[in-house]
Amino acid sequence: MLAYETEAPVGNAFLAEKTQIPPSYLSKVLQGLARSGIVESRRGVGGGFKLVRGADEITLLDVVNAVEPIPRIKGCPLNLESHRHTLCAVHARLDEAMAQVEAVLSSSTIADLLREPSRPRPLLETVAFLGEIRSQKK
Amino acid sequence: MLAYETEAPVGNAFLAEKTQIPPSYLSKVLQGLARSGIVESRRGVGGGFKLVRGADEITLLDVVNAVEPIPRIKGCPLNLESHRHTLCAVHARLDEAMAQVEAVLSSSTIADLLREPSRPRPLLETVAFLGEIRSQKK
Repeated sequence: MLAYETEAPVGNAFLAEKTQIPPSYLSKVLQGLARSGIVESRRGVGGGFKLVRGADEITLLDVVNAVEPIPRIKGCPLNLESHRHTLCAVHARLDEAMAQVEAVLSSSTIADLLREPSRPRPLLETVAFLGEIRSQKK
Repeated sequence: MLAYETEAPVGNAFLAEKTQIPPSYLSKVLQGLARSGIVESRRGVGGGFKLVRGADEITLLDVVNAVEPIPRIKGCPLNLESHRHTLCAVHARLDEAMAQVEAVLSSSTIADLLREPSRPRPLLETVAFLGEIRSQKK
């Protein structure tokens, strides 16, 4: 959403309305994004949130990791002594799966996601598209 | 664990002790595995759980899906009307990531996981390996 509005900062209430995300949850998401240096918040009249970098410099992985990091398995989750230096095959496979998730999410920037004309606009109701469906129903 | 003990059924308490998994949680896991036809339970004296198929016919994905299925994104999670027929690029990427998780987990059978000599035995403390580490410390 912030990538659509690159000029002025956008307020939490406006974003919540457009994305239909509950304002309290959205507020936590924006705090996470701010902590990770993806957005900055400006206080006062005309304040709100704004992207720090361009949408082509932010990957989907950056955003996901800012909100809820992909859980990589570095050590044995069961704290088994004999698994301390080498993960067992089960945990190694689960970590490999998480590495694949990271690979998919890091391969797309936010700008990439916004320029797929065959898909509806991310997280937003597309009114033109809706109109098209409605006219087809007549 | 059940793949180690292929002869007799194994009880919940024994499994819980060996794997250090809380018995109440393990019981739910075993119920899920039974519902999916991966294990069968036998009641009474000498009863317990047993694999229905061989460990080489059960993939890690079968087990994970029996306990907590990988969440594939079939329709718009936000229920947006204009996203009903085509996912937006964000949800399409997230679903692609989940497809990669399924691919990794389906590529290994339980038997595969047990025959990796360079790794400790899945989910179990390996006493021989522990002994080796202790002797190195001397």
